[in-house]
Amino acid sequence: MGRVVVDVMPKPEILDPQGKAVASALARLGFGQFGSVRQGKRFELEVEGEVTGEVLAAAREAGEQVLSNPVIEDVVAVYADEVRAGGTQA
Amino acid sequence: MGRVVVDVMPKPEILDPQGKAVASALARLGFGQFGSVRQGKRFELEVEGEVTGEVLAAAREAGEQVLSNPVIEDVVAVYADEVRAGGTQA
Repeated sequence: MGRVVVDVMPKPEILDPQGKAVASALARLGFGQFGSVRQGKRFELEVEGEVTGEVLAAAREAGEQVLSNPVIEDVVAVYADEVRAGGTQA
Repeated sequence: MGRVVVDVMPKPEILDPQGKAVASALARLGFGQFGSVRQGKRFELEVEGEVTGEVLAAAREAGEQVLSNPVIEDVVAVYADEVRAGGTQA
């Protein structure tokens, strides 16, 4: 089984109030080194079998047509990822 | 200026209704090859200067203490990313 990750972020010119709220919270909690924060979405799509170039192309299309709102968001990354076995990865 | 990406996903054992809704939408719209979808969050944190090991460690700490709810979410990835100049990246 393969997994494809599709990352969607608000366009750079779009205001991101969620990210701004997170940045203020981080500053209050002692993480002042992070001056600016933007928050987006990460989708993990699972496919039967291997992640081929075709699968990646379909995932990008799905990202652009379904997973993101192209008026305010960009699909910033589409890549194959290892399937975690219940743990966390570095 | 450097950028750190922190990826947060619902824990594998936690139900993800958002992901399930996305999976049904994909199937209806001709992307049936993606059987299962999980939706998480992607944070882009900006720092002055380079992304050092120390910055990555602080970003992971921020991810675990502020950006995620450790009861239901895992910080699945923390890594340095190039700053986009208003465009999209592959």
